[in-house]
Amino acid sequence: MAETNFADRLFAAVEEKDSRVCVGLDPNLELLPDDLLAAHGHPAEAVVEFCTRICVAVAPYAPVVKLQAAYFEALGRAASNALWAVIAEARREGLLVMLDGKRNDIGSTASAYAQAYFGGETPVDALTVNPYLGSDGILPFLEAAQAVGSGVFVLVHTSNPSAAELQDLRIDDSSHRVYEHVGEEVRLMGASLRGERGYSALGAVVGATYPEQLAHLRRKLPGVPFLVPGYGAQGAGAAEVIGAFDDDRLGAIVNASRSLIFAYRQATEGESFATAAGEAARRMRDEINSALQS
Amino acid sequence: MAETNFADRLFAAVEEKDSRVCVGLDPNLELLPDDLLAAHGHPAEAVVEFCTRICVAVAPYAPVVKLQAAYFEALGRAASNALWAVIAEARREGLLVMLDGKRNDIGSTASAYAQAYFGGETPVDALTVNPYLGSDGILPFLEAAQAVGSGVFVLVHTSNPSAAELQDLRIDDSSHRVYEHVGEEVRLMGASLRGERGYSALGAVVGATYPEQLAHLRRKLPGVPFLVPGYGAQGAGAAEVIGAFDDDRLGAIVNASRSLIFAYRQATEGESFATAAGEAARRMRDEINSALQS
Repeated sequence: MAETNFADRLFAAVEEKDSRVCVGLDPNLELLPDDLLAAHGHPAEAVVEFCTRICVAVAPYAPVVKLQAAYFEALGRAASNALWAVIAEARREGLLVMLDGKRNDIGSTASAYAQAYFGGETPVDALTVNPYLGSDGILPFLEAAQAVGSGVFVLVHTSNPSAAELQDLRIDDSSHRVYEHVGEEVRLMGASLRGERGYSALGAVVGATYPEQLAHLRRKLPGVPFLVPGYGAQGAGAAEVIGAFDDDRLGAIVNASRSLIFAYRQATEGESFATAAGEAARRMRDEINSALQS
Repeated sequence: MAETNFADRLFAAVEEKDSRVCVGLDPNLELLPDDLLAAHGHPAEAVVEFCTRICVAVAPYAPVVKLQAAYFEALGRAASNALWAVIAEARREGLLVMLDGKRNDIGSTASAYAQAYFGGETPVDALTVNPYLGSDGILPFLEAAQAVGSGVFVLVHTSNPSAAELQDLRIDDSSHRVYEHVGEEVRLMGASLRGERGYSALGAVVGATYPEQLAHLRRKLPGVPFLVPGYGAQGAGAAEVIGAFDDDRLGAIVNASRSLIFAYRQATEGESFATAAGEAARRMRDEINSALQS
């Protein structure tokens, strides 16, 4: 029994808050407030408090948070306990929770990853997955996600400077580049998993730092929800992301991490890190909505 | 100050034990002995005991173990504690320790993953990395690995049935396929990191289930050490892996997981899971060595 389609849940939450903002929880210890780190016996405790307070502050302005697995894994033996604690706190604030793990493996190992994140008591709402291994590396994730009404976002075109090295290679005997080929495979694999709004539970990660490719893929991949990283610290703004949306201003969620959760580092004195993050999320929501209306 | 080159350490261990076997620690709870699971209050404790006893049993016959991150992550909040406990136990048995995480991300996030596995008190000897993001997604791992004398294995051609869907796409204006392009990039990126034996700290994952591509890549990528999965349960045998080795019978390490650690399921009654794994590792060592001598 599949639950409600993931994309329907995602875009219902987007409409409810009128916000297309995903808050990236990338708790880099080097950027956490010193007093918060000093107040805790273990950095993992500071990370959990930091992320919890960010969730509380951004919940009015963002429907979803995305935990970056790497910053949790950097906590060593305390990593998974901190990760699951933050997932629980984010849910308590009514946020959808995505895990940016870019996981990838095959057969029973892919199923073990899928079980880890979709099979427990509090499954994540979506997980990012890397496509290098082909469909064997995607389907086990999608199957486990579907069983609990969650989704999967496959990396199609990433936001980093060297993204093009592999993703933009042109394929022989076709007019496609690698990322277009992957995008088309994602569309086909997810075509039977569309919800009432026409969007699939299988989505694509498409970076905002390549706005032409983003708009191109939006046209080529109807029904595929996009997770769009690269906003803020990586350089993209509202003008770069509007191509990700459909005519109903749906179809995508835009992630920013550092520019939101570490906004306190540029804030006026006395403003807490949480308040600064909430304000930054509100501004980002408004910037994107304004760009979509103009 | 870099420590001894990773490939020199790896192949010194291979020569010392005259074994090219990597034992894959994929502790799938469904395949663990029932009495072991029953003896522990939490599955994570059973996983640590299982892996520890496997390490003790295989250490005479294998220079290296490879932990599959997925099966640890499936343990939920107990995951990272169990992972690091097994890493510590494997080192205590004198084994080199690789983590098969197929991690991939960019910039500061890639550095956070690298810090997680190479930056702590007991860095792993090598980590697997996925190349879809291009060189930005590989260099932060390599830099952190080099700082502690460890290595990185980049997925080039994987062992699964759908590997070809992306990896074998032929690139326009060249005679190369995607995996050959990635392999060549790996060779170039690692060329300055070669040790005394001529092998780099930057290696490649090349599956044994595609023996032609494996032998082809061995010729094309001198100096790149290979981690070769797919032996045993995935169908490849000694005949399929000999193409991975150079004329000195070095240059590669062959992984088997299920066929070694779950050998007890086919063993004669009364043989412990650890004894069965040790025997299976010894047989695999001998099979590969025989094939290389004939």
